[in-house]
Amino acid sequence: MNNQLDRNSDIPLYQQIEQIIKEKILKGEWPVGTKIPSQRKLASIFCVNRSTVTAAIDELTAEGLLEGKRGGGTKVTKYTWSGLASGPALDWTSYVRSGIHRPNSLTIQEINRQEVKKEIIRLGTGELSPELLPYRDMKTILRHAEAEKLTLGYEEPKGNRYTREVIKDRLEQKGVSVSPDSILIVSGALQALQLISIGLLKRKSAVLTERPSYLYSLHVFQSMEMKLCGIPADEKGLDPAVIPACKKQCGADLLYTIPTFHNPTGRQMTEERKKELIRISKQQCLPIIEDDAYGDLWIDGPPSPPLKAFDQDGNVLYVGTLSKTVSPGLRIGWVAGPEPVIERLADIKMQTDYGSSSLSQWAAAKWMESGLYEKNLARIRNKLKIRRDTALRCLEAHCEGIASWEKPSGGFYIWVTFHKPLQIHTLFEKALKKNILINPGTLYDQEARQSIRLSYSYASLSDLEKGIRTIAELARELM
Amino acid sequence: MNNQLDRNSDIPLYQQIEQIIKEKILKGEWPVGTKIPSQRKLASIFCVNRSTVTAAIDELTAEGLLEGKRGGGTKVTKYTWSGLASGPALDWTSYVRSGIHRPNSLTIQEINRQEVKKEIIRLGTGELSPELLPYRDMKTILRHAEAEKLTLGYEEPKGNRYTREVIKDRLEQKGVSVSPDSILIVSGALQALQLISIGLLKRKSAVLTERPSYLYSLHVFQSMEMKLCGIPADEKGLDPAVIPACKKQCGADLLYTIPTFHNPTGRQMTEERKKELIRISKQQCLPIIEDDAYGDLWIDGPPSPPLKAFDQDGNVLYVGTLSKTVSPGLRIGWVAGPEPVIERLADIKMQTDYGSSSLSQWAAAKWMESGLYEKNLARIRNKLKIRRDTALRCLEAHCEGIASWEKPSGGFYIWVTFHKPLQIHTLFEKALKKNILINPGTLYDQEARQSIRLSYSYASLSDLEKGIRTIAELARELM
Ligand SMILES: Cc1ncc(COP(=O)(O)O)c(C=O)c1O
Ligand SMILES: Cc1ncc(COP(=O)(O)O)c(C=O)c1O
Repeated sequence: MNNQLDRNSDIPLYQQIEQIIKEKILKGEWPVGTKIPSQRKLASIFCVNRSTVTAAIDELTAEGLLEGKRGGGTKVTKYTWSGLASGPALDWTSYVRSGIHRPNSLTIQEINRQEVKKEIIRLGTGELSPELLPYRDMKTILRHAEAEKLTLGYEEPKGNRYTREVIKDRLEQKGVSVSPDSILIVSGALQALQLISIGLLKRKSAVLTERPSYLYSLHVFQSMEMKLCGIPADEKGLDPAVIPACKKQCGADLLYTIPTFHNPTGRQMTEERKKELIRISKQQCLPIIEDDAYGDLWIDGPPSPPLKAFDQDGNVLYVGTLSKTVSPGLRIGWVAGPEPVIERLADIKMQTDYGSSSLSQWAAAKWMESGLYEKNLARIRNKLKIRRDTALRCLEAHCEGIASWEKPSGGFYIWVTFHKPLQIHTLFEKALKKNILINPGTLYDQEARQSIRLSYSYASLSDLEKGIRTIAELARELM
Repeated sequence: MNNQLDRNSDIPLYQQIEQIIKEKILKGEWPVGTKIPSQRKLASIFCVNRSTVTAAIDELTAEGLLEGKRGGGTKVTKYTWSGLASGPALDWTSYVRSGIHRPNSLTIQEINRQEVKKEIIRLGTGELSPELLPYRDMKTILRHAEAEKLTLGYEEPKGNRYTREVIKDRLEQKGVSVSPDSILIVSGALQALQLISIGLLKRKSAVLTERPSYLYSLHVFQSMEMKLCGIPADEKGLDPAVIPACKKQCGADLLYTIPTFHNPTGRQMTEERKKELIRISKQQCLPIIEDDAYGDLWIDGPPSPPLKAFDQDGNVLYVGTLSKTVSPGLRIGWVAGPEPVIERLADIKMQTDYGSSSLSQWAAAKWMESGLYEKNLARIRNKLKIRRDTALRCLEAHCEGIASWEKPSGGFYIWVTFHKPLQIHTLFEKALKKNILINPGTLYDQEARQSIRLSYSYASLSDLEKGIRTIAELARELM
């Protein structure tokens, strides 16, 4: 809205602001009931003094367009020109509140809002730093766009066949052997979870997962009235031995796991455990979703093959993505599993978005088939190693004695647990005041009130250093 | 699977087929309980005689891998090598059956399966013919990929800002004035409906819509336990006067309408009705979803402005898409509406797929901002005019006296209603036997048992002629 202000005009700024807000209200962009941004926020949006904003708000309030609620901020109220005669206005806010899908947690909403700011040091983000994203190679791919392999029409339900064949080849290299008919292309791994939640489970189902887990930070299952049941894990990954009891206790219908470079703990399941997990899954008739978002991002050496490589019975739905290795903006991931399940998920995908972008599907195939994918991976692994080692060094320098952590051998994350209780949300807020964003452990496990997820994938080396030092200082104050 | 057969091998074909199927079973791609394709279908997949398939199936049955059910086809059963000792296998079919989202209607599943076949004449498809898709211009855009405007990271919740600004400019040209903050980029118009269904409505809500309507062919609302309530429409579009009574009767919370070049009737709402609808919506506090998928595809002259242009109160959520004008494969559409609603939908979009493809968002902006969009539209309008006129001419030549229809002034569809009762599904099947795909009216209105949706956007002119002639013949036989 700021660029609508004319600082050379004769009309005072407060009147211009009044006009801009009035227009938003009269055009229905801010309908009746909308809580408008706080005066502090408006002042920062318009780059003016708070008193200028106050003057504009006062005018609008006097006109009857706004109404200040004690403690509840300022809300849009009835319009002067439509008058009382027209009766009550449509109450969108009740619609916004009553939808089935839960809103993101307030902390995640806050993180989403803050992380677009330039000055912020992002220590929690699950994303490659822009400097690690392969802009040049992507341009090269686009420049050589060959029309023959590009589709502009609606794609087949399971996604572009050629791209599925390329994915099949990549999976083969990991020891996973599936045919293209058993692969569904999705718009990122997250969408795979969403489709599974509305496609394969009844309401009130239960899903087993490591605790902490990325899954707890989402609402894909919970919004469909399902519940998550946490199971313990150690440095070797989740413990298959506890599954029968856990399953019995909560009546679980599915297990979700991130065996390789786990989010948020960075852990890696051992091959022995993987085999055991497959055995237990078979014995318990318990399907597994294997989320392998980070599997290619090893730092110290290749991990053991995915769970899916040990699965002879089709009990595992394998999920992969290009988001962590090439570009999250591509929005390309895949699910591999039994054909009837893939067909069901494909049918629902067609019913909810008619398939993934064919441009992205085409580019994804190009990446993997041209060798650029491997080349890019090698580069990213090197960079991640430097970043991880820097983060570990900073932790040793600043957090020795007050926290513990494990050395991840791949992926993006270090799970840092402080030794003494502290208000993790206060730590979050104090860090934010210093322009540092962290992801509190409670996003991944309600009870992880002494932990944070530290990501070394995004912030620069100097920001990592500065950020970790500051967090250590703040934590010391709070403990 | 066909290309796995080696016709020069010494191993008999039936044994090779046995081996291929066995592998699918042993790898778990066809898990226990899977109904395998019929022998007829397998014979056509492998391009062999049916007896060859039968020999393979017999062997597999003898080995205990398959089991023939009387009338129920052939199913995968337990594995020989895992033996009975391992207990029951995971039953994926029960998962596939119990998911929350409804499967596509059987007719639509059949259409999806058939329409990939080359020899099929597609008279029902809601898609531009490949010859109308702008492959050359898309290539040009990709070749000039400028890195600066390309984003590879996760995008903002509402979508790429630049693309939203370009969309804002386009909407302005239609008389719709919204700011980029009030626009959400989605992966096609269908996704907008999906997000609205899980984001703004309670279970058991009711949605008003024209009957027939495209909405009846989807399950986006019904899968969330909502119901659709049909309201009558005539050549001027839906009749706003009946809304208060309809709303009262079914307690509707939302109205969905396709005012311009309606799917499936091709009708266009008059400006007078639009204004009246807006008035009623306000009076009734009834939000409107305006689906403007076809608005740019006028043939005889520009339509009146969208409903949204008359909406002063933010009661209308406006939905647009590039699928019908540029490329469905792009998967780019948008929703414009009150900011709090857009923010809610953006939050859910982030929670279900982290945003639309940034490649597609970038390409969409290029299309609209470069002028290629308008140029392409002009070309498509010309072609659609020729196609529509041909279809009308064929209808006059072959269906005079047995059916009636209206002349659409834009979009893709002609709604053809036969004068006498006939088994519409038999017509569908008889046409399919002659390699012609039609969309039965019952997809869009359960009771439209004498209608079909004819699309002139896909089939070639000669196929249109041939198809319509054949349909007329078949209909005459059936009436
Ligand atoms: C374990 C895991 N799975 C899935 C995702 C989502 O990735 P995508 O961008 O492919 O949807 C993430 C991203 O944070 C992740 O950490
Ligand atoms: C009225 C209408 N809305 C929406 C869609 C879906 O379009 P999109 O490809 O943008 O999801 C269609 C496609 O058939 C349609 O006819």
